[in-house]
Amino acid sequence: MDERRPGYCLEAPFYLSDEFYRRDIDAVFAATWIFAAAAAEVPEPGDFVTIDIGDYSVIIIRDDDEEIRAHHNVCRHRGARLLSETNGSVGNIVCSYHQWTYSPEGDLMSAGVQAPGFDRTCFSLRSVNVRVVAGLVFICLAHNPPEDFAEVAQRISPYIQPHALNKTKVAAQVDLIEHANWKLVMENNRECYHCEAGHPELTCTFFPTYGYAPDEIPKRLKPAYQRYLDAEERLRVNSERNNLPTQLIAELSGRATGFRIERAALDGKGESYTMDGGAASAKLLGELDTPELGRLSMHTQPNAWFHFMGDHAVTFSLIPLGPDTTRVRSTWLVHEDAVEGVDYDVENLTTVWVKTNEQDAALCAKAHRGISSPAYVPGPYAPTESDLEEFCTWYIERLQAHRAQTDVQQAGQGGQS
Amino acid sequence: MDERRPGYCLEAPFYLSDEFYRRDIDAVFAATWIFAAAAAEVPEPGDFVTIDIGDYSVIIIRDDDEEIRAHHNVCRHRGARLLSETNGSVGNIVCSYHQWTYSPEGDLMSAGVQAPGFDRTCFSLRSVNVRVVAGLVFICLAHNPPEDFAEVAQRISPYIQPHALNKTKVAAQVDLIEHANWKLVMENNRECYHCEAGHPELTCTFFPTYGYAPDEIPKRLKPAYQRYLDAEERLRVNSERNNLPTQLIAELSGRATGFRIERAALDGKGESYTMDGGAASAKLLGELDTPELGRLSMHTQPNAWFHFMGDHAVTFSLIPLGPDTTRVRSTWLVHEDAVEGVDYDVENLTTVWVKTNEQDAALCAKAHRGISSPAYVPGPYAPTESDLEEFCTWYIERLQAHRAQTDVQQAGQGGQS
Amino acid sequence: MDERRPGYCLEAPFYLSDEFYRRDIDAVFAATWIFAAAAAEVPEPGDFVTIDIGDYSVIIIRDDDEEIRAHHNVCRHRGARLLSETNGSVGNIVCSYHQWTYSPEGDLMSAGVQAPGFDRTCFSLRSVNVRVVAGLVFICLAHNPPEDFAEVAQRISPYIQPHALNKTKVAAQVDLIEHANWKLVMENNRECYHCEAGHPELTCTFFPTYGYAPDEIPKRLKPAYQRYLDAEERLRVNSERNNLPTQLIAELSGRATGFRIERAALDGKGESYTMDGGAASAKLLGELDTPELGRLSMHTQPNAWFHFMGDHAVTFSLIPLGPDTTRVRSTWLVHEDAVEGVDYDVENLTTVWVKTNEQDAALCAKAHRGISSPAYVPGPYAPTESDLEEFCTWYIERLQAHRAQTDVQQAGQGGQS
Repeated sequence: MDERRPGYCLEAPFYLSDEFYRRDIDAVFAATWIFAAAAAEVPEPGDFVTIDIGDYSVIIIRDDDEEIRAHHNVCRHRGARLLSETNGSVGNIVCSYHQWTYSPEGDLMSAGVQAPGFDRTCFSLRSVNVRVVAGLVFICLAHNPPEDFAEVAQRISPYIQPHALNKTKVAAQVDLIEHANWKLVMENNRECYHCEAGHPELTCTFFPTYGYAPDEIPKRLKPAYQRYLDAEERLRVNSERNNLPTQLIAELSGRATGFRIERAALDGKGESYTMDGGAASAKLLGELDTPELGRLSMHTQPNAWFHFMGDHAVTFSLIPLGPDTTRVRSTWLVHEDAVEGVDYDVENLTTVWVKTNEQDAALCAKAHRGISSPAYVPGPYAPTESDLEEFCTWYIERLQAHRAQTDVQQAGQGGQS
Repeated sequence: MDERRPGYCLEAPFYLSDEFYRRDIDAVFAATWIFAAAAAEVPEPGDFVTIDIGDYSVIIIRDDDEEIRAHHNVCRHRGARLLSETNGSVGNIVCSYHQWTYSPEGDLMSAGVQAPGFDRTCFSLRSVNVRVVAGLVFICLAHNPPEDFAEVAQRISPYIQPHALNKTKVAAQVDLIEHANWKLVMENNRECYHCEAGHPELTCTFFPTYGYAPDEIPKRLKPAYQRYLDAEERLRVNSERNNLPTQLIAELSGRATGFRIERAALDGKGESYTMDGGAASAKLLGELDTPELGRLSMHTQPNAWFHFMGDHAVTFSLIPLGPDTTRVRSTWLVHEDAVEGVDYDVENLTTVWVKTNEQDAALCAKAHRGISSPAYVPGPYAPTESDLEEFCTWYIERLQAHRAQTDVQQAGQGGQS
Repeated sequence: MDERRPGYCLEAPFYLSDEFYRRDIDAVFAATWIFAAAAAEVPEPGDFVTIDIGDYSVIIIRDDDEEIRAHHNVCRHRGARLLSETNGSVGNIVCSYHQWTYSPEGDLMSAGVQAPGFDRTCFSLRSVNVRVVAGLVFICLAHNPPEDFAEVAQRISPYIQPHALNKTKVAAQVDLIEHANWKLVMENNRECYHCEAGHPELTCTFFPTYGYAPDEIPKRLKPAYQRYLDAEERLRVNSERNNLPTQLIAELSGRATGFRIERAALDGKGESYTMDGGAASAKLLGELDTPELGRLSMHTQPNAWFHFMGDHAVTFSLIPLGPDTTRVRSTWLVHEDAVEGVDYDVENLTTVWVKTNEQDAALCAKAHRGISSPAYVPGPYAPTESDLEEFCTWYIERLQAHRAQTDVQQAGQGGQS
């Protein structure tokens, strides 16, 4: 990992080996802040979702004080999984094996007949770090989660707050199993070099100039570029009137909580990710006065990306299921008062990203299969693939940080052993 | 394995790792006596069953002298599996590849054209240790099987003999694949703490006070306990009249051939494991004069449990198929002269345990999934779970004995190497 | 591998372990010449087949100059698999991910927008060694392929050329997945000890005396042997008139490119592998003047066998897919002008070998399952199994040669490290 050639893809074992898969879980997914769910997925007390990360299983539940909690999904008696469903609603968390019963806060309320001296307070559910940022739930499995998250939360909140996610509901959620290493899915997400040939629906509204520096725009893309400049100017006016920050912040590497946020124009009608770019939901989010607000796009390392529009928001998060298998979850959020069939139509709302994700899944599977050949050698990133370089840099930083921490722990455990 | 905390579940790797799975096969399933089948499964000469244990495959066959034999299911020519079916009947054992032909006793009878000097007697089937105890077939794959088995056989035979298994036939056999480590399936079998909530059919006849010491009976179970005491008294009278031993012998740990045997009353009509506790077969076993004889229950380490009633017997045995997969086989035996549809109805005979096993399979799968989380920590056994503690103790003893034996073998092979 | 007992099967790990599977790929399948396809499978420029060997994927394509090329099926940009289909036809080879475009010769023709200084000539497809011998395509993945192949090609060409494979077409192709280690599939192919009991269709035309020395013929096979001698005499006459070499060359071990070739009579009508031995295609191959030419049979280590008749040819090749899984591909070639339904009927053409291969698959699966038992011990080869001994000898030679080469490479990389 210390010999990575900058500007080039990673070597094959990073994508293929069981060893790196396990290391990725430990050094990345169990060590950094992970986007886990929208708070709108657990709107009422007792509502929960369960998220599996590697061998971990985590319950995210809203407690009776409306606070969102996260617990390991493991009974403290004989270890049974407590909640098997991916989402639902409970009063207390009751283990189906021997009826040990926990409150949503994680306290053990009852445990059948036990020997004298049994102390219930020693058997609360093990908790997981959780933070809610402008309606987005992040968790961290580490004992000492990265401290820079608070600062990131503070900087991204003003961008997202106007979209009022706390007043949204889930209109649709789709899980896609991709046959590719999670890093290939991330790399695929971080460039649009493949969009023009690969994503006919997305390119109705996604400017094909994404990723190009102004002086690198190929001739054939000049008309699109002019359209982009005009749309950006309209977006500037609409954003200022709505007090929306638009400025790019790009800190995808060099820190534990890597992220990128930016408001940008959409092609077509400029309102939403639909086939003609028009709004998909008639009820606008928050207090916004126009749907023509392009897309507020956010990327967070290691596993999520988001688009917030005037009429809806869509979140994407991936979880590795194995070296060659990745789950991508897409969640569409609309105003909590929007009525299906009246204000929005699910197919119209979801078509562009459902198709795009399926197309990406096919491409990522080909990338994974190709890299599996011993004949693979890392190739060079094109200029439009600079965010992949950022991703790889961040990823190697995390592996190195984890190694350093592990070394310190071992040294602390006794010097020469 | 030397640091196990008494009174607590095992650490996760014992249940999850490939390494412990392989060690369990070597140190437990290939080193101790395993219940393999009822003799009634091979009633006639040439009848066989095949049993796979880890990578081993064993033929259990009744020879022409009515003796039960066990052989490795591997041709001595090029290693082909000889018998692919789980049971059947043959004259000789003929390899389908090149027609090498073995007698039921395992002798090579013919082998096609061979070079001069080929000695058939060098190519008998490799045999496996086998003992039949009161109609139950036990095998041991070890070269030096545990010697305490003879004593155990002598002590349990008087309990089982009156049920005359040698005059029974198989009424039903069901295999269930459970998605859990075999030790979780055993632990689940060894307590009834989960029965009241988890087994509505079984608790028609199984007293919910199982596992409680008399002074630990919870208040809500007092009426059940009184019913139990009354039923026990009737059982005592009926057993004495039939000359049935009833006394508990519990030697589940501290010896290679761990076992527990006891006659106990059943709830309801007290006769059999049916929904109302009434006998399921009209033809009583052996010379028994009443069906109201409760259950003679036997547990044998590492893989079996049995219930012998006045009207039928049911045997259960498990075989690990992998770290997270276990096969549980249930076999119902009725009097050999009982006529299906007249004396017994298969559904009535099997319902309670079919349902109970399916319920247990779901619980064990949840236990396995939960323990898979790195957040799992072993929890404390409740007072009603004392036989789990016995099982874990026995299991650790077996691993230690196997390690000691392996160490001795290595030392014997040349000191310092 | 240095302790193999001559005349006996290999020890179990050779057939079962992941380690030997990987070693077999490296030391055998990626180090020696492998039969990959008939040239008739890619008749026109742009026609391709893809062949996966272990984790490798290879494109075999006919270029615009009608020459057959082989390339690794991996894009030089981000490693995507280029061609996913097992066969087809293309103008150029275009990566579906970012449209990098390669000529059939492997040159990178275009690659989108790249940074200044990007040199296309550095990103040609990585090539694979390829040789076409009398219409049969062999590839070798090694940097330094075995040099003895040229000599073998020269010696076998005169035997095969009269069958004019360059004027054939594919009449049928069948892939069969066998649940057995590839070496068991090869061993099964190299003896006919199992044919009499196992292959009722094949033994219509395959003399049951195959593999026996004349003085070892069992009594029951004497009539078949006389029939064989008569057929051989007719074959000698027909072959001489057609200028066909018939003499056995058997060099299956002792060299990198082990092979065996021989013309031999067929039973029945003596013309082809059909149920009655009659020709399956009315258009004879090349300039041959009679269908009664028996079979020209060739075996090549490590993975192929062939039968060339007067009316058609059939090629067989296997590829290991894992320690316990092997793909066997059968391809039937007829004269390029033969018309289906008029000159030949596919079912009549293919029945004997389709059935025989399925029978073999069942036998090999039993062999693999049996060898998986720890109770397996290698047994002795019978006199009719001498070619298995040759195969094992060759195989061990390859492992030893690979180890020696690896040792030299490591020594060359710095002595003490």
